[in-house]
Amino acid sequence: MSDPSNVAFLGLGAMGFGMATNLLHSFPNTTGFDVWAPTLSRFTAAGGKSAQTPAEAVRGAKYVVFMVTSAAQILSCLFDESTDTGKSTSAATALEKGAVVILCSTTPPDHARVVRQKLDAVGRGDVALVDAPVSGGTVRAADGTLSIFAAGAEADVQAAKPVLDAMAGSNLWVIEGGLGAGTNVKMVHQVLAGIHVIVACEAMGFAARLGLNTQWVFEELQRGEGNSWMFGNRTPHMLVDDGKIYSAVNNFVKDIGIITTGGRAAGLPLFLSSAAEQVFVAGFSAGYGAKDDAELVKLYIPTEQNLVLEQTSLAKTSSKDASKLELIAKLMAAVHLVAAIEATTLGAKVGLQPQQLFDICVGAAGTSFMYKDRIPQLLSGKWTSKKTVDEVIAELKVSIEAAQQLKYPLPLSGTALQLLQLASLKGLGRDPDVAVSRIWDGVDGPLFPGSKV
Amino acid sequence: MSDPSNVAFLGLGAMGFGMATNLLHSFPNTTGFDVWAPTLSRFTAAGGKSAQTPAEAVRGAKYVVFMVTSAAQILSCLFDESTDTGKSTSAATALEKGAVVILCSTTPPDHARVVRQKLDAVGRGDVALVDAPVSGGTVRAADGTLSIFAAGAEADVQAAKPVLDAMAGSNLWVIEGGLGAGTNVKMVHQVLAGIHVIVACEAMGFAARLGLNTQWVFEELQRGEGNSWMFGNRTPHMLVDDGKIYSAVNNFVKDIGIITTGGRAAGLPLFLSSAAEQVFVAGFSAGYGAKDDAELVKLYIPTEQNLVLEQTSLAKTSSKDASKLELIAKLMAAVHLVAAIEATTLGAKVGLQPQQLFDICVGAAGTSFMYKDRIPQLLSGKWTSKKTVDEVIAELKVSIEAAQQLKYPLPLSGTALQLLQLASLKGLGRDPDVAVSRIWDGVDGPLFPGSKV
Repeated sequence: MSDPSNVAFLGLGAMGFGMATNLLHSFPNTTGFDVWAPTLSRFTAAGGKSAQTPAEAVRGAKYVVFMVTSAAQILSCLFDESTDTGKSTSAATALEKGAVVILCSTTPPDHARVVRQKLDAVGRGDVALVDAPVSGGTVRAADGTLSIFAAGAEADVQAAKPVLDAMAGSNLWVIEGGLGAGTNVKMVHQVLAGIHVIVACEAMGFAARLGLNTQWVFEELQRGEGNSWMFGNRTPHMLVDDGKIYSAVNNFVKDIGIITTGGRAAGLPLFLSSAAEQVFVAGFSAGYGAKDDAELVKLYIPTEQNLVLEQTSLAKTSSKDASKLELIAKLMAAVHLVAAIEATTLGAKVGLQPQQLFDICVGAAGTSFMYKDRIPQLLSGKWTSKKTVDEVIAELKVSIEAAQQLKYPLPLSGTALQLLQLASLKGLGRDPDVAVSRIWDGVDGPLFPGSKV
Repeated sequence: MSDPSNVAFLGLGAMGFGMATNLLHSFPNTTGFDVWAPTLSRFTAAGGKSAQTPAEAVRGAKYVVFMVTSAAQILSCLFDESTDTGKSTSAATALEKGAVVILCSTTPPDHARVVRQKLDAVGRGDVALVDAPVSGGTVRAADGTLSIFAAGAEADVQAAKPVLDAMAGSNLWVIEGGLGAGTNVKMVHQVLAGIHVIVACEAMGFAARLGLNTQWVFEELQRGEGNSWMFGNRTPHMLVDDGKIYSAVNNFVKDIGIITTGGRAAGLPLFLSSAAEQVFVAGFSAGYGAKDDAELVKLYIPTEQNLVLEQTSLAKTSSKDASKLELIAKLMAAVHLVAAIEATTLGAKVGLQPQQLFDICVGAAGTSFMYKDRIPQLLSGKWTSKKTVDEVIAELKVSIEAAQQLKYPLPLSGTALQLLQLASLKGLGRDPDVAVSRIWDGVDGPLFPGSKV
């Protein structure tokens, strides 16, 4: 019999452990499951209960939260047979009547619907299912203030509210569109977040190669149009050598793979996401998979991997430093602008409500100065006095030519320039936001009908 | 006084030495100049004469050939003052009346016009000037069978013919369009050649990661639609460990920089060229600048750099090998197709005659199965029964998804897929050649008016 105070929590990794431990405040009867024994012991030491199999974990639980690593693990946990109370059974069979399953792992958008079909196929139409991916990192996971994008049948989302509220506080977003819509929000958010992490690396490696004091560059760039939340969050890890892993490269290898897979499925070209994916995957190939993603800056300066670190205390040598700083700021602003359009376009294409998507992302890790500044005008179609597409191109060219002189690679900035040039060549508009967004206009017309050429 | 049998040859590098030595057959009075003394001694040992300054070299010569490394070196040789026969003078001043200056170095397209202006400005309107970049490698340089793309005033090209014929034999192409047009041909050719070198690396690293016998892969792929001249030329250097430098990475770092600079100047996005540039520059950054460009395959497999070499004698293990080979062939075919369009588009944009450009490139190092197969139908507008754009996308997706599973980076293939998807999304046509070419249609309409949607 399910007890409304009982929670099963599957997957006690870096995020999951904090989420489950936080849940103990509201749900003291939370049972954890993980294949790695030490994290399970740590969870019982924190006051939780532990289970040896998924089926044992879910037995008696009203709520079942999944925070395992992948869609494959969710399917394995739910539908593989395991030996529980002496007999072989699957967790799907062991779920209490009317249990509420909450999927928090980042998975492909169609995954939650696959789980629904499989539950129904084994006669578990009684089980409520919520697609509820999260964003916010380990600190907010442990605080119970994660951003959660919850979607599913209205009654199911309602049934999951007590647990969602305990994990998200005021950061719970209910997304229209049924199972998969929450994951679509997360996917679009990761377009921004993933590109911004790589731009931060591209920018800081460039700063080092330009001979600038990197600490000063970090402080200055945060004040201007090149800033992003990820730049503020990741760059400090490049400026100290603490060896810590805040977020492993493998996380984005997975998330951006979901994005480009989603783009292929939707028939939507995602130039910047694809370029960023190549850098993440190149990092994986070079052995950085389990390392902090800020270390990818080293891919940009392979023969002088500590240059960003070493130049934190470099003297500011000349008045040229300010103009070198401008080169980096312009490059970041241009890539962030194109990333904002690419993400917003993907969101519209997968059927998300653009204004809600903006409201979510602007307050989350995917935000940037450019995203906040430009997307409202793209959505409203009201162009206020800003730079034209040709002015943005002219600025970005100066940065790219400086990098070319240094023979410094700029895969993301190079891609952004091609897209801006395409928008200009085709006469898609004066406003760079509108012009770039029109690159994706399909045979059905513009995705953002409010925008004017 | 100029003697019609006297030639000055400036720049005795890998290419220049062979060219100058070959010229000795027709022009025994050839005087070489190079800043590196050993190559100069080698040239005199081969029967040539030597000079200590550019001014000394050109004195008495009817023909002056430049094969130095860069545009900057040409300007320095011609216009910097040096001490000659006891007095300070520039080579431009020292040139004999009516001398014929032949610029064979690869330079930016506007360079020859800059040289013309500077010659005129120092009162040397009497000097003939020919823009005559070359292609074909060191063997053909020494054989006198280089491809040469000669452009300039008609009388000047005519005056240069004896020397051009001696260097090119039947491979001399006279290009309409005045100074710079020859360099434009070379630039477009290098779009193909540069992308094809990187695709060869991308493909062979992928073959190794797929666990295939790389010698077998090389032999098989040459027979199919994934083949290119560069694949046939560069891949053998990946399959033996001879440490030789056939063509240094730095050559393409320079040439592809000229291409992307040309694209920026023309306001033309060059997605694949830009992506290929990033790989060449990343190679330079990782210390491969002076190494053979086939070694860039190691960037794709950084923790197993010898995998392509090691797997030359791997057993063919299963019937799955044929389908894995298909993955690589499709990927190469798709990138070569998009590269063919990108190059042809750039050529049209800079005013080259498309049919002549095709005739040149199809017989040179830039050719590929796809280039030869598809460009004629793009130019004629007559679509014969081939795959549709959506069929090409479907095939490329399978390859890209296999690489994504392996976490193997595919910067060029990823870029090609985005462009194909863009062409499909926008409904630009059934035929992939035509559809992709229409991506570049500007406000002035299609560049290839014969093509049909």
